[in-house]
Amino acid sequence: MDESSAPKPIRCRAAVCRAGGEPLQIEEVVVAPPKAYEVRIKIICTSLCHSDVTIWSIKDPAGFPKIFGHEAVGVVESVGEHVEEVSVGDMVLPFCLAHCGDCVDCRSVRSNVCTGVPLGLLDVVMSRDGTSRFTDASGAPVQHFLNVSSFSEYTVVDVTRVVKVAAAMPPEKACLLSCGVSTGVGAAWKAAAVEPKSTVAVFGLGSVGLAVAEGARLQGAGRIIGVDLNPDKFEIGKKFGITDFVNPKDIGERSVSEVVIKEMTGGGADYCFECIGLASLMQDAFQSCRPGWGKTIILGLEMHLSPMSISTLEILQGKSIIGSLLGGIKPKTDIPILMNRYLNKELHLDEFITHEVGFHDINKAFELLMAGKSLRCIIWMDR
Amino acid sequence: MDESSAPKPIRCRAAVCRAGGEPLQIEEVVVAPPKAYEVRIKIICTSLCHSDVTIWSIKDPAGFPKIFGHEAVGVVESVGEHVEEVSVGDMVLPFCLAHCGDCVDCRSVRSNVCTGVPLGLLDVVMSRDGTSRFTDASGAPVQHFLNVSSFSEYTVVDVTRVVKVAAAMPPEKACLLSCGVSTGVGAAWKAAAVEPKSTVAVFGLGSVGLAVAEGARLQGAGRIIGVDLNPDKFEIGKKFGITDFVNPKDIGERSVSEVVIKEMTGGGADYCFECIGLASLMQDAFQSCRPGWGKTIILGLEMHLSPMSISTLEILQGKSIIGSLLGGIKPKTDIPILMNRYLNKELHLDEFITHEVGFHDINKAFELLMAGKSLRCIIWMDR
Repeated sequence: MDESSAPKPIRCRAAVCRAGGEPLQIEEVVVAPPKAYEVRIKIICTSLCHSDVTIWSIKDPAGFPKIFGHEAVGVVESVGEHVEEVSVGDMVLPFCLAHCGDCVDCRSVRSNVCTGVPLGLLDVVMSRDGTSRFTDASGAPVQHFLNVSSFSEYTVVDVTRVVKVAAAMPPEKACLLSCGVSTGVGAAWKAAAVEPKSTVAVFGLGSVGLAVAEGARLQGAGRIIGVDLNPDKFEIGKKFGITDFVNPKDIGERSVSEVVIKEMTGGGADYCFECIGLASLMQDAFQSCRPGWGKTIILGLEMHLSPMSISTLEILQGKSIIGSLLGGIKPKTDIPILMNRYLNKELHLDEFITHEVGFHDINKAFELLMAGKSLRCIIWMDR
Repeated sequence: MDESSAPKPIRCRAAVCRAGGEPLQIEEVVVAPPKAYEVRIKIICTSLCHSDVTIWSIKDPAGFPKIFGHEAVGVVESVGEHVEEVSVGDMVLPFCLAHCGDCVDCRSVRSNVCTGVPLGLLDVVMSRDGTSRFTDASGAPVQHFLNVSSFSEYTVVDVTRVVKVAAAMPPEKACLLSCGVSTGVGAAWKAAAVEPKSTVAVFGLGSVGLAVAEGARLQGAGRIIGVDLNPDKFEIGKKFGITDFVNPKDIGERSVSEVVIKEMTGGGADYCFECIGLASLMQDAFQSCRPGWGKTIILGLEMHLSPMSISTLEILQGKSIIGSLLGGIKPKTDIPILMNRYLNKELHLDEFITHEVGFHDINKAFELLMAGKSLRCIIWMDR
């Protein structure tokens, strides 16, 4: 392309976080053109995931200003050099985990941790050149988040972190597959590979936990036990395949692991998924697993970055612990499969969307999620 | 059988431990007849495993008097009611982990933790009736250990814990397969299912660690890295397939996990086995595993019964931790396979036997093992 048709910086609105725990501010930012292997996307809609809230709540001045958001759908506005996989005008879904397709990990069925492009999940800049594409009104750089930063009308994402969305797919449903729902469904499908008729226990019934239940249902699990402090979650969970429910508040002196799960399953669950990110709950999940073959699946970062502690006496009894990012899915190949399963009416997605707001109301999405009132709140950029 | 032919109590010699950490005493004990589902065995030879030493060193008066020993070969002297699988005169190998063959775990390929007979690894009595078969000269009961108690001329073992030994098999070689060597070889073969050409790291090159290397070699691993503080272990390890060696004393400020393994493997090993039973080494092993698909295998109890601590940030990168008893082997079906592989000259066993002593010299076996001078010391009952 000649100089005149090369992408130019774009001025647009973004919801910038200036300090940890404080409301986002809608500001004008400049979004630089995509560099080599990068794609600039006009966001259609985005949603709020717990990882946004976890990092948002850290009061470390070095972490800001930042543009959060990593679940989204948009349209390719321009592309940098060497981008052949997507074109201007394509509807695409960005995601946090690179998928280059060429490295030893991408070529293996056992891994979804691409080593072709640096993992850099905690990076605040673009992976390849280590700089930001965002500047604020004063000309100062603004940090990226999880390689997506979708709380902006335009964003720049590495080409290894976008996948095309079929025209038939409603953008707000596709949006859910960027992170949380894919993580949960994927954990049952890929990381744990839940076997038909098995017993599954899901600790924490937020969107990720409900998506695990949904994934376990699709895998043919015989029994799906939900564990949550909120009694309303049993009714909500039934839509996603939850068959039994334990509220730790209702079991007196007994612990979830030692008594209830074992009473309910006669020895422990085949698969236990920890979907909150609390070290103590990870231990509960591990203890609730059956000796012999019980698997505990860790889906997210411990919210205080604490380590988890495991009894060697327990793990020796044939138990295992598996960790995964994005539930072990390979985004470019597996997200299209999930979209198809939605379009074929196998995978439930509609039920995750409990709220929808316009971009100027983005702080409402934070309030709803933190109050435990929403599963996913869709934020529409043009409303 | 009529009353006169029923098995009678037997007076014989046993090496009794009267107090934690003190030398065993050769004493006369009475070994009661086998009850239903039990087998009384005349021990031919036995060997000392680290688990004996671990429990022997605990200075808890409630734990004694006790008869240690759980690696052995013997001949069936008498059987209790309902024992059909073995007959008087059969050469048999006892082992600590029950294998009933009928329960859901025994019927599954995924588990070796029999639920048909209680696990009772820390029991000090027979599993089914909760009493001891040993009494000392004063008539007081003597505790069992790991359901075997082979440091006695005669012992009683549950029928779910014995397997026949082919006549072609030298008893002292079979003896090794009761616990330690089966645990190590099994961990590579069953618990980890090491893939051909993969990279394996073995932390601690005692008998179990060397047996892991041997198992990994049989699985076709491409590279087997041994980690040990004793420089002599590299030469010894080469016999069992060790291709590379790291001595933590020789790497200066660098840690085994963060630098050496990653330098040697460019990202970490595919499989890391912890073969000492130290929480800190379990963490080293875990950190040395490759993101994407790296597996850490825990083979034994932490020697201070401490928990292991795991970074959730690390495990999320597609790592997993697997625990197993006896390396995940199903003793009655898998130990005969290992015996055949020895007779076919595939599996190395001879090299594990570094010392042989008579029964009266049993304390020498403890000294050799604790000084790190022996791999396995065979204790012959008739010498």
